[in-house]
Amino acid sequence: MSISKKITLSEDQIPTHWYNIVADMTTKPLPPLHPGTKEPIGPEMLMPLFPMELIKQEVSTEKYVEIPEEVREIYKIWRPTPMFRATGLEKALDTPAKIYYKYEGVSPAGSHKPNTAVPQVYYNKMEGVKRITTETGAGQWGSALSFACGLFDIECDVYMVKVSYEGKPYRKIMMNTWGGNVFPSPSMRTEAGRKILAEDPNSPGSLGIAISEAVEMALTDESTKYALGSVLNHVLMHQTIIGEEALLQMEKAGDYPDVVIAPFGGGSNFAGIAFPFLRKNLEGTHQTRCVAVEPASCPKLTRGVFRYDLGDSVGMTPLLPMYTLGHNFVPAPIHAGGLRYHGAGAIVSQLLNDKQIEAYSIKQLECFEAGLLFARTEGIIPAPEATHAIAQVIREAEQAKAEGKEKVILFNLCGHGHFDMTSYEQYLAGNLVEHEVTQEEILDSLAQLDTPTIG
Amino acid sequence: MSISKKITLSEDQIPTHWYNIVADMTTKPLPPLHPGTKEPIGPEMLMPLFPMELIKQEVSTEKYVEIPEEVREIYKIWRPTPMFRATGLEKALDTPAKIYYKYEGVSPAGSHKPNTAVPQVYYNKMEGVKRITTETGAGQWGSALSFACGLFDIECDVYMVKVSYEGKPYRKIMMNTWGGNVFPSPSMRTEAGRKILAEDPNSPGSLGIAISEAVEMALTDESTKYALGSVLNHVLMHQTIIGEEALLQMEKAGDYPDVVIAPFGGGSNFAGIAFPFLRKNLEGTHQTRCVAVEPASCPKLTRGVFRYDLGDSVGMTPLLPMYTLGHNFVPAPIHAGGLRYHGAGAIVSQLLNDKQIEAYSIKQLECFEAGLLFARTEGIIPAPEATHAIAQVIREAEQAKAEGKEKVILFNLCGHGHFDMTSYEQYLAGNLVEHEVTQEEILDSLAQLDTPTIG
Repeated sequence: MSISKKITLSEDQIPTHWYNIVADMTTKPLPPLHPGTKEPIGPEMLMPLFPMELIKQEVSTEKYVEIPEEVREIYKIWRPTPMFRATGLEKALDTPAKIYYKYEGVSPAGSHKPNTAVPQVYYNKMEGVKRITTETGAGQWGSALSFACGLFDIECDVYMVKVSYEGKPYRKIMMNTWGGNVFPSPSMRTEAGRKILAEDPNSPGSLGIAISEAVEMALTDESTKYALGSVLNHVLMHQTIIGEEALLQMEKAGDYPDVVIAPFGGGSNFAGIAFPFLRKNLEGTHQTRCVAVEPASCPKLTRGVFRYDLGDSVGMTPLLPMYTLGHNFVPAPIHAGGLRYHGAGAIVSQLLNDKQIEAYSIKQLECFEAGLLFARTEGIIPAPEATHAIAQVIREAEQAKAEGKEKVILFNLCGHGHFDMTSYEQYLAGNLVEHEVTQEEILDSLAQLDTPTIG
Repeated sequence: MSISKKITLSEDQIPTHWYNIVADMTTKPLPPLHPGTKEPIGPEMLMPLFPMELIKQEVSTEKYVEIPEEVREIYKIWRPTPMFRATGLEKALDTPAKIYYKYEGVSPAGSHKPNTAVPQVYYNKMEGVKRITTETGAGQWGSALSFACGLFDIECDVYMVKVSYEGKPYRKIMMNTWGGNVFPSPSMRTEAGRKILAEDPNSPGSLGIAISEAVEMALTDESTKYALGSVLNHVLMHQTIIGEEALLQMEKAGDYPDVVIAPFGGGSNFAGIAFPFLRKNLEGTHQTRCVAVEPASCPKLTRGVFRYDLGDSVGMTPLLPMYTLGHNFVPAPIHAGGLRYHGAGAIVSQLLNDKQIEAYSIKQLECFEAGLLFARTEGIIPAPEATHAIAQVIREAEQAKAEGKEKVILFNLCGHGHFDMTSYEQYLAGNLVEHEVTQEEILDSLAQLDTPTIG
């Protein structure tokens, strides 16, 4: 083995700025609309929910935004994250492709989510916020926010989808260990929760309900703000630190990716690794394919429509331009919980509509097969979300082999699977089933939309 | 924050040699004895259990042993591991002490154990071994060996103490994911297991029984060998890569530790970080206190005796010179499962007897309190084993404050607690109880020993 397995950066190479792709987009993302009036909303409408600095970032058109010194100091706990050449996987696939991956699972919360949780909590702290509320499904985001709130000594209330709260007790305890309060949603703490429970005392909850509860708590208490782990522009921008580091690491490795691949839920993972490479595309110096991979059970990018839709089920959020399956779409209970969201963020949706990026959907058995091969050849057990990227990597590597091409592939290994062991157990026992959504289900869900169309 | 939080090394700074402290010891460790004849055994007696290269290392008196290139390549997946300045913890303690920690939880298996699992599997592979057996209690060692066997494509059979097998299902699945086979022990697969089950079909198992089963499988099949995760000389030597890196990192930080602290189970964790600093003591250039911390419920170093004892309960292993509580001692079911072993390795025992190192015991509530403070100030959730070191660090830092002294403290954060969340849950719920062993229990256990005494 003469190939360098790990490509590292020194601490002083941690990027000083996040990249705001909006500055370079030929077609800018459409504005959010008020859910009632359907008119574009101004930044001031977001003030009850977010601190001013994050609102400024949300609407910023500056190309780079400086990372505060205190945030960079905390990033140093796990950043720069390593990049690896997947020598073991390459050998197993017998492919001429060179496969690289950026590994974000080294963060204390085990995923890329702290990249945005830390600055979000920092800006809230600077503006005197005492408590932050959020929702979480699988638990990656709630863990990251609890971790960050622990470091800044801010209260953290996490509304966790009840079925996950009951099925993933370790996630809850992890959040508690960092000082986070975790409530099964729907709860009796909010108007939204009480309403749902009155209708159905046994409601298993959903991400849409949990968002409504977290948003309501922020709207009804002045010292409380709300935080979101994906979809929004500022969240995606914070994640670009992944791709900025990856650019430096690819240079160090003496390669440049022909294709960059990431799993897709709301867009933060994909944006994080892909946007800095897209900058090079947009600047005209390179041409890299940027590929988002979604589960076949929640295929908004490949089978949804591009129109305005709500971020939650209840209608407490603005209308956003997105590729969507409809805000009432309920994805099957697949194990990649972080990818079970009905819509995509505004920026990513615009880029897809403009054909600047590609999207594919893959079924979960192929993903787990890929994840297992990866664990046994590279040693790291990937989160179920991350296996979607790996499955696509294997497709690309096999195509390279068929074509006899040396292709450089880079993907984002966004997190480890330490809290997803039951998923692997079910896969190993042969108990996982496929969940491919039918065209009828999608059309049914979309038919319920009365939101503005686009173009 | 102007202090550098993380002290890293580049890949080419990974040490090329392990350090064998036996070469420098003024009193060499006593030889192992045959359990029947009580006579010293030669290396050839170990051949049914271990590959020749590991036996050579077990009895080596060379000061340094070269790390094979292929092992170093795999080490690169997670090594060099980071060292951190515990700025958050220091601030919370308001101490003049400077606290550093080496973090081994970044390995794919989440602890320091792969440092020896990888070379052990490598030497077995080189000598044509097809299957490796081992025992595991809490699961850290079984996970590490499964991980390493996965990379070298060797079969791995893990005998897991039945009560852990049932109580820690995620650990089992983790091993399965890497391809390891996991059997609850006692099992019907071995003579030893069948005997135990015939006497007590509901036996919860013990580490002693699991060792007997794993050893029996190796003794009865020529293509199968046995592997141990602590206690033995070669295992401790492999772990010295931790301290060798730490020496370089302390130099980079411009400090040198006044005290080095590690949790103590069988000795591999402590030896790993402390032996390279002890070398500097033995060479006369430095004087660092090396402190082992054991649970109050299993206090072999602080309350046991120094004499020959068996490594297992059934008597299938050689007699080793050790600080021991007696091989029939059953520690209380504390959450730091990795520290529930009745004896200490031969080298560490000799060093303690010669007053070259110090030992303290701490109760588990103080340890979990320390672990929680650490999680909330440093962001990393420590394994219950590691919290023992943190509790001692806090004692030392508070003493430094009381004395107004700037003291440099280094400890080994040997692993994360991702698979120990139920322990934190019980602590947070106030359900953890103390388990301090009585003098009577210790004397009772020691009274059963008919093994040779020392000195």
